[in-house]
Amino acid sequence: MSNGILVLSEQELRKFVQLDMKVIEKIELGFSELAAGKATVPPIMMLPVPEKNGEVDIKSAFIKGLPSMAIKIASGFFQNPDIGLPSQSGQMLVVSAETGFLEAVLLDNGFLTQVRTAAAGAIAAKYLAPDGVDTVGVFGCGVQARYQMEALMLVKPYKRLLMYSIDTDERKQAFVKDMQQKLGIEVKSMGSAGAMVAECGIVVTTTPSRKGYFEPEWVHSGLHITSMGSDAEDKQELKGGVFAKADLIACDLRAQSFRLGELRGAKEEGFVTDKTPVKEIGEIIRTGKSARTDKKQVTICDLTGVGVQDTMIALMAYEIAKREKAGIVVPR
Amino acid sequence: MSNGILVLSEQELRKFVQLDMKVIEKIELGFSELAAGKATVPPIMMLPVPEKNGEVDIKSAFIKGLPSMAIKIASGFFQNPDIGLPSQSGQMLVVSAETGFLEAVLLDNGFLTQVRTAAAGAIAAKYLAPDGVDTVGVFGCGVQARYQMEALMLVKPYKRLLMYSIDTDERKQAFVKDMQQKLGIEVKSMGSAGAMVAECGIVVTTTPSRKGYFEPEWVHSGLHITSMGSDAEDKQELKGGVFAKADLIACDLRAQSFRLGELRGAKEEGFVTDKTPVKEIGEIIRTGKSARTDKKQVTICDLTGVGVQDTMIALMAYEIAKREKAGIVVPR
Repeated sequence: MSNGILVLSEQELRKFVQLDMKVIEKIELGFSELAAGKATVPPIMMLPVPEKNGEVDIKSAFIKGLPSMAIKIASGFFQNPDIGLPSQSGQMLVVSAETGFLEAVLLDNGFLTQVRTAAAGAIAAKYLAPDGVDTVGVFGCGVQARYQMEALMLVKPYKRLLMYSIDTDERKQAFVKDMQQKLGIEVKSMGSAGAMVAECGIVVTTTPSRKGYFEPEWVHSGLHITSMGSDAEDKQELKGGVFAKADLIACDLRAQSFRLGELRGAKEEGFVTDKTPVKEIGEIIRTGKSARTDKKQVTICDLTGVGVQDTMIALMAYEIAKREKAGIVVPR
Repeated sequence: MSNGILVLSEQELRKFVQLDMKVIEKIELGFSELAAGKATVPPIMMLPVPEKNGEVDIKSAFIKGLPSMAIKIASGFFQNPDIGLPSQSGQMLVVSAETGFLEAVLLDNGFLTQVRTAAAGAIAAKYLAPDGVDTVGVFGCGVQARYQMEALMLVKPYKRLLMYSIDTDERKQAFVKDMQQKLGIEVKSMGSAGAMVAECGIVVTTTPSRKGYFEPEWVHSGLHITSMGSDAEDKQELKGGVFAKADLIACDLRAQSFRLGELRGAKEEGFVTDKTPVKEIGEIIRTGKSARTDKKQVTICDLTGVGVQDTMIALMAYEIAKREKAGIVVPR
């Protein structure tokens, strides 16, 4: 045990962690360990602050065999933009699994969460989406929409990106410009959501919608959908009927998806039950091959975000930072 | 909102926060707000690490009207002493209730928890114990036993301190010496637990016992017991029959005491039920007077530790540290 606590800034963490295959492999290992029963994932601790339309969420996971675990404190305060601040913020603590002592404070402002969430999207596509898709679509034009499309490019390279959003024209144009630059391909903002899905082999939904907007009739043969927006009891992106059209349903953590994710709404609407076969992504990873057995299958993966992702990315960042002798050491 | 995150060391925090009436009043206000329905206290998040006989617990509370809230990460790893480290460690984060942004990291190594726990003991005695008690007793001879006896002296000054413990002679002698020095009164290590209780008007139990050891037949007219050791489903200090002899039962948080505190064991043993009148300490505080109406009443207060205590003491420490311009500011 070192004598001090390592404090790392967002700037430093951004130098050490990028959205690349190395991160994706780490997160994949985390899901695999979860499916193998080697992770303890307590329910998310939620602290609502209704006066500010805000909430602080705490996630964590202990993975057997790892030297440390992460505890993530993530905030979403939706009046922040009115005063010129981002809605989302967050940081992670690294705690020794040997002694319980605090080892590091990762002041990432939510950066590591953005990366580990996008990595989960890449893993979902890797194990469920069809190969050879030229055109992909994304709902939403925010930071996570950008990360998801970057992550997808790493595992299922595509040639054309469509986006549908109800955000301002300014923000939509910024997305198009940024992603054209980043990916070097055609990027288009679409006026019709249905028309967008019709052209896409893979669609990722990244909105904080509180009402299902993805229509069952948009679903077409071979489509893969990753839905990562819903992480609370009042959120929903896919109308329940979308699940009735799926050949394969997957999620990150069943209990959580039925409580906070798309499976909650789909169950309430009567399209899935506790008995509907839903695979966890870690279970699929452990088979070592794609869960898709036919080009025509419709597949859905619902992602709510699991503490194992935070523990994996935090430990990775911490290990690199130690090696690079980065950060400030505060005496214990 | 400041541009940086304030990181404070244990050494600095010890300069700003002492176990005094100011702290006790703050914690009292926290309990009062809790009873007034102004606090949101999510269930404790628990991360067990059975391989190391360890556990990381996360507590928090949002109190309406306060500018910030605290999130506490506390560890108990009971193989640590084998490698020369303390079992307990911990720290608190201060998060803005306006924006959700992290404001401060209090690297207190559990110091603030020791103080806020002792403060709750003082409050329990203030509102339940009889006046004019000369001799008080404590079970256990650890750090919290010391703090509890210091705190008690502030609200119910006493003349003689007895201690019973199954710890080593060395540790028991150290307790006697330390407390004699600190309090300037007679302090005695007792060979018999029953004989100790017989001499005392107030007894505080501070052990991590996993089996009730406090016998019902030790209870005598006028006795007040504060029991703060049990904070987990497998801990118990008071045998269930002790509750059958109580005229007044109080606790810090009913739901938690029935799950993790003494009321769990007492209920299992059939001495209390969900219908047994149990007052929360905050409810008593709000009446503005002692719950004891007779010198002869037997009173018990079970303390499990509530997030409001952490939020109150963390905010107090943070306010002082800001005023004193202490700590390191890490850029956001």
